Amino acid sequence: MPINSIISLFKEVLDNSSILLGEDLKSRFYHIWKTDISLESLCLLLPRSSEEVSAVVKICNDNNQEIVIHGGLTNLVGSTISTKTQVVVSLEKMNKIIEIDEKGKTITCESGVIIEDIINVVKDKDLLLPLNFGARGSAQIGGAVSTNAGGLRVFKYGMTRNLVLGIEAVLPDGTVISSLKKLMKDNSGYDLKQLFIGSEGTLGIVTKVVLRLYRLPKTRFTSLAVTNNYQNVLNLLKIMEDRVSSNLTGYELLWNDTYKQMVGDKTLYNKYLPDNYKYYVFIEYMGGDFENDYTHFESIILDCIDRRVIDDAVIGKDDKEQVNIWGIREDVAVLADERDFDQQFDISIPVPLIGEVIDKISLELKDCKGVKTIFPFGHVADGNIHFIIGKDSDDDDLKSKINDIIYDNTQLVAGSISAEHGIGLDKKKYLIKSRSEDEIELMRLIKKSIDPKNILNPGRVI
Amino acid sequence: MPINSIISLFKEVLDNSSILLGEDLKSRFYHIWKTDISLESLCLLLPRSSEEVSAVVKICNDNNQEIVIHGGLTNLVGSTISTKTQVVVSLEKMNKIIEIDEKGKTITCESGVIIEDIINVVKDKDLLLPLNFGARGSAQIGGAVSTNAGGLRVFKYGMTRNLVLGIEAVLPDGTVISSLKKLMKDNSGYDLKQLFIGSEGTLGIVTKVVLRLYRLPKTRFTSLAVTNNYQNVLNLLKIMEDRVSSNLTGYELLWNDTYKQMVGDKTLYNKYLPDNYKYYVFIEYMGGDFENDYTHFESIILDCIDRRVIDDAVIGKDDKEQVNIWGIREDVAVLADERDFDQQFDISIPVPLIGEVIDKISLELKDCKGVKTIFPFGHVADGNIHFIIGKDSDDDDLKSKINDIIYDNTQLVAGSISAEHGIGLDKKKYLIKSRSEDEIELMRLIKKSIDPKNILNPGRVI
Repeated sequence: MPINSIISLFKEVLDNSSILLGEDLKSRFYHIWKTDISLESLCLLLPRSSEEVSAVVKICNDNNQEIVIHGGLTNLVGSTISTKTQVVVSLEKMNKIIEIDEKGKTITCESGVIIEDIINVVKDKDLLLPLNFGARGSAQIGGAVSTNAGGLRVFKYGMTRNLVLGIEAVLPDGTVISSLKKLMKDNSGYDLKQLFIGSEGTLGIVTKVVLRLYRLPKTRFTSLAVTNNYQNVLNLLKIMEDRVSSNLTGYELLWNDTYKQMVGDKTLYNKYLPDNYKYYVFIEYMGGDFENDYTHFESIILDCIDRRVIDDAVIGKDDKEQVNIWGIREDVAVLADERDFDQQFDISIPVPLIGEVIDKISLELKDCKGVKTIFPFGHVADGNIHFIIGKDSDDDDLKSKINDIIYDNTQLVAGSISAEHGIGLDKKKYLIKSRSEDEIELMRLIKKSIDPKNILNPGRVI
Repeated sequence: MPINSIISLFKEVLDNSSILLGEDLKSRFYHIWKTDISLESLCLLLPRSSEEVSAVVKICNDNNQEIVIHGGLTNLVGSTISTKTQVVVSLEKMNKIIEIDEKGKTITCESGVIIEDIINVVKDKDLLLPLNFGARGSAQIGGAVSTNAGGLRVFKYGMTRNLVLGIEAVLPDGTVISSLKKLMKDNSGYDLKQLFIGSEGTLGIVTKVVLRLYRLPKTRFTSLAVTNNYQNVLNLLKIMEDRVSSNLTGYELLWNDTYKQMVGDKTLYNKYLPDNYKYYVFIEYMGGDFENDYTHFESIILDCIDRRVIDDAVIGKDDKEQVNIWGIREDVAVLADERDFDQQFDISIPVPLIGEVIDKISLELKDCKGVKTIFPFGHVADGNIHFIIGKDSDDDDLKSKINDIIYDNTQLVAGSISAEHGIGLDKKKYLIKSRSEDEIELMRLIKKSIDPKNILNPGRVI
């Protein structure tokens, strides 16, 4: 179909200000880190309602027109890049919070709402959305749902999947599948929302969601503890789980080189503990009773030092200290090289094996000519470790050698090549290291059944 | 295909002791409550491995042979009933525990393992499988996964879905889809296990699972509290969540008539509190420090009495007291009529609306000639209420009138006609009261894509 013809069809269902073309695309981009690169696209559509999304998708499906979906553009696997022949549909104007149900502890909103805005608005009502990851200030909730985003509190609250109670999504033929119920339990037929969560926009466009909220914990304490022995990282976790039970809300790990970099010259973070330990554990405790909780938490930490489970520790009690401590864990931009040669990873490994696998990977990486820095860090209690690997150059052979080292070692222990970032375009080549041929075939069957013309986020995942 | 021909095909892949026919079927049954009714089936197959399940399913698919799947036979929606022309595949011989990973807190087992056996074997290693429902002593883990079973700790630990890390399932064409990874986070492509969880055996036969375990809480306290006001049931929940935070592990409710019956002449349960209150709330606290936790829990309960949030309460501290208190909540067989005229329900309602909706339903039921007793009870913190309704007769009109009262009122508040039991055969007629035509159409599309010959648990769900 000629470009002008399909644009004129879009004009029948969207007003002009919702259709960006030509020059207007120059100020648009496909990733928040690439704002200097203009968007390539046939046109960018900005629907304001599920009905408009449905109408647009139906036109595309009828005309075999490929669509790339845009949310907050924080995706890390290339999912939001598009070509000159693809239509981009951005959910940014669908940014209304529809309802906060304080008593029922749910929020219903459109897909384009920024995650941090949800966090803040429910916090005012003493409620918690436990989603917590670096990009929360830009990422939209629809994107988080479509990619099943993770973050810092997964071992406690689960992935985004676990927080979604209801969903509305537009299928590739334009059908609106809507189930915006506020129910924690619903076994009435197939749980269709699971299809749209984590399938990276390949099976439908998520337009609205109902999320589960929690009561906002009243107290928060953080400890940074050190040890030279991975077994003690596990022992400490076990003691915490046994003694503070479910009020353990964070358990994160930095390796020595990463810690050194985080408290080095590039930052202003207070170096609470010497930089000669192998492991730096970040522990978060959230409870309901300030004095009682603090005394309890402190006594456990002291006991762990006495029993040599950890070599030393510091406890952050007030907000300022905790912001500083968590900055050391979270402010990972510090680990990146300014020349953009880095490679970033997001793997899952069975928790007991993390110590030895990361040692092995690090050793092999050190043997690679061209590798400058190796910074592992991550969500150790749920098995998700990230790497930022700095290099001398952008050489393709080196890139591929590093990928092989990380993904082969991950495959050896039945890990995952993508714990939380998804597959997108960038990791497709390595999907076979995490999933069997039969599994990928079943994914293809599902994709083909629901999107027979392959118009939605084509080429992503499979 | 003649019966003897397909049996001879089964004989090529199973040994004779795994194929039950004719007279042997007389001692078999389709439900643990119906042991006096012989199983109707072409034959009952008892595969011992995933390979055998695969071979059997392939033969059936090649020959358009319908299969009904049997687990622990505790299903409450008619899913395990079969006809003379259907083959029954029981997973009971696939009952091996393959691995308990103590450090990684996972268990890998075959589908036929009894849930209570898992609970006990991991308890010995200081680990908790939080699945906890009445039928746990007979139900098999494969059935719990296929039906996404719920129970008493869902608001805290989630449904079965939330506990499944890995799955192996046999597709209708015999393909074994295996992903038995022990990972909490895995966004490498579509999360295929979600297809098999809760689809009631219509998309595949679950043969193995990896489950997430938790550290076994060290302390447990239970309180039974009373109030006449549903608002206070909610207020108490809020106070508990604020003050004990995530260590609140149970929050259940009985209505007055139900309590009266539970502590009446039919049972030996200690009647801790007078039977003239409207609501009886069961609160469970699990933590890590006996003295500290008890003092904390007690002070909250006393404070709630002082502030008139509740009218009275009792706290069970030792095991014996707690067994007695939880018996009052759990021993619901006492609510059933011996003549088998009862109707049982399993609905979800948004938590803030439960008080008024149950009042309305109860009033309408009382107006029904033939209704004798109305016993509501349930998992109030996650919105799941059960009813057992006693009647004078088994009259079909009355049955249908009662169904309409319950399901219409559920539909009015965007609830679910099945919170945890599933749809099976019995609730199919009412599915439309929970799900839209478009949703049901999408379910059909998925079923047709994966099971084009409709051989697996045919007629269930959709």
